[in-house]
Amino acid sequence: MLPFPLRQSLSIFRSFSPAASTTVATMKLLYPTSLALDSAKITGFPTLTLHAYDAKSPTLPSEHHDAHVLVTWANSKDNLKYAVENLNNLKWIQSLAAGPNDVLSAGFDASKVKITTGSGLHDKTVAEHALGLLLNAARRFYEMRDYQLQGKWPGHLGGPQPDREKGTFRTLRDARVTIWGFGNIAKSLAPHLLSLGASVKGLARSKGVRDGIEVFGEESLEEVLKETDALVMILPGDASTKHALNKERLAYLPKHAWVVNVGRGTSVDEDALFDALEEERIGGAALDVFETEPLPEGNKLYGAQNLILSPHAAGGRPQGAEELIVENLRKFLGGQELKNII
Amino acid sequence: MLPFPLRQSLSIFRSFSPAASTTVATMKLLYPTSLALDSAKITGFPTLTLHAYDAKSPTLPSEHHDAHVLVTWANSKDNLKYAVENLNNLKWIQSLAAGPNDVLSAGFDASKVKITTGSGLHDKTVAEHALGLLLNAARRFYEMRDYQLQGKWPGHLGGPQPDREKGTFRTLRDARVTIWGFGNIAKSLAPHLLSLGASVKGLARSKGVRDGIEVFGEESLEEVLKETDALVMILPGDASTKHALNKERLAYLPKHAWVVNVGRGTSVDEDALFDALEEERIGGAALDVFETEPLPEGNKLYGAQNLILSPHAAGGRPQGAEELIVENLRKFLGGQELKNII
Repeated sequence: MLPFPLRQSLSIFRSFSPAASTTVATMKLLYPTSLALDSAKITGFPTLTLHAYDAKSPTLPSEHHDAHVLVTWANSKDNLKYAVENLNNLKWIQSLAAGPNDVLSAGFDASKVKITTGSGLHDKTVAEHALGLLLNAARRFYEMRDYQLQGKWPGHLGGPQPDREKGTFRTLRDARVTIWGFGNIAKSLAPHLLSLGASVKGLARSKGVRDGIEVFGEESLEEVLKETDALVMILPGDASTKHALNKERLAYLPKHAWVVNVGRGTSVDEDALFDALEEERIGGAALDVFETEPLPEGNKLYGAQNLILSPHAAGGRPQGAEELIVENLRKFLGGQELKNII
Repeated sequence: MLPFPLRQSLSIFRSFSPAASTTVATMKLLYPTSLALDSAKITGFPTLTLHAYDAKSPTLPSEHHDAHVLVTWANSKDNLKYAVENLNNLKWIQSLAAGPNDVLSAGFDASKVKITTGSGLHDKTVAEHALGLLLNAARRFYEMRDYQLQGKWPGHLGGPQPDREKGTFRTLRDARVTIWGFGNIAKSLAPHLLSLGASVKGLARSKGVRDGIEVFGEESLEEVLKETDALVMILPGDASTKHALNKERLAYLPKHAWVVNVGRGTSVDEDALFDALEEERIGGAALDVFETEPLPEGNKLYGAQNLILSPHAAGGRPQGAEELIVENLRKFLGGQELKNII
């Protein structure tokens, strides 16, 4: 006879064993090879089969046209268009991008197919990049580079410096940073800014206190922008945010204030920004996103004064994609509302 | 008759009132106008008189040649030399620089005059700059700038990126950062790196755990450098640290590793570093300090591959100078050992 503890654990195991057989429909999920997904982390759903596909290909293999779930990341436009036209059983698209822009542009209809985004997968990478751009601006690394390339020592930027002069943005210490668009990325960025000594405010459609940061509503926009040394924009790219930072609002910013945009390019009126930079009505701008990307050769922004250009490089590396897919698979199969549904 | 509470407080006041008169020697402190010191924060020592002086002048006013205490910041060489030759009553020099190099070079003798440094006044500013240089390196802002200046979109640095590839330094997340020279600046820097997801080690003469960071002794140097994605050097500039990072030690670093130096230029063998950069034996270097400053025009480092040049700009803004002066004044007058004495 087995000793008592082992008998007990065996009986527990038996009570959890599956029934002899149940007939359920199987489901097919396509995942892209455009990032190194660990498909082993998505297993464990007995009715689900997983199939890799090439997100850059203009087509999808005909044997997978019956797929139910499509995971997308950095798909080519052709590929998404092909999916719209050929995946007639599709029930759900899980994008790993922060926003649904590419999926919607391809023609997927959110009233017919569930569309979920990768919101949250890019918080830490985008926050790190935004912090880097702020320090690049404050510490004038871009200007140092210009001198270096000419073989010259940028002596005016080194040695003994005036300490926290009024009307400058030279350090995050005691700087007044406003984050416009206060979602997960902002919540990830704010603690880094606070720990470097900045004071941080938020600006968003609805006011309140989020993660301990005071977020002002857009009715306070003028007042908040007037007391901003660095404005970090993390707005989504929809019609409501088009040219959110326009000529009138740029004029609220102090002459030394910097604009950092890691949200979407359409939220800034680039002509108005260019004029503000050239006429030294603001301190500078560090842009990771543009109205048209890549920024066309010959565009005046390349040469704008105190403009730091970054080629949509803030995110681009989803963190924890497998966990999001699994969470949403479980919810999808359980008939619950999906996370990040649009 | 006065009501009870007021009588009591008056009697308390009387008991703390000074004796009618005491004869004590007065003492003269000279403070520089090279930074905006708030002299009101240094008052309250009845035997002390405060006098501002111009640290850039080649002389000091003859009526102040009897000064006992000299506070220095960004003094000209001439000015310090003049002080050595003419301030014959000098008992103590409080430098606000992180190290005593300029005061010692001018000829002050630490066996005759107490010399205290501004160690600790630069921790936060230098840590912020070092963090900025690390992000500049990881996020390739310097390379983006080169493209921008040519009017070109650096597309290879943006869009979907491989996530934390082995053998790269593209983010602080999961990066192995080693801080060589583990004093106050390192303690200020480490929490920022940890909060961005880096793993942080220290390297110093003596091993131990400081502020929760494991610090390895120099006997572990080879082993630690071999497992480093970014090496931050914060070594002081004395004879013992001369060329601490030499050809042999550079060879321990992985091919993708970056070197950031915000300590003293003499701690890096610049010829060996240049060769390592040009031969792509390391990932890059971000230098705020150089063996000769300003780095002479025509120096090969200006054009070295993956070299970020910063003109000794990390510190240069003492924080809390008045508090240090007051603490040391109190100790000086009380006959206690001074803070930051060399």
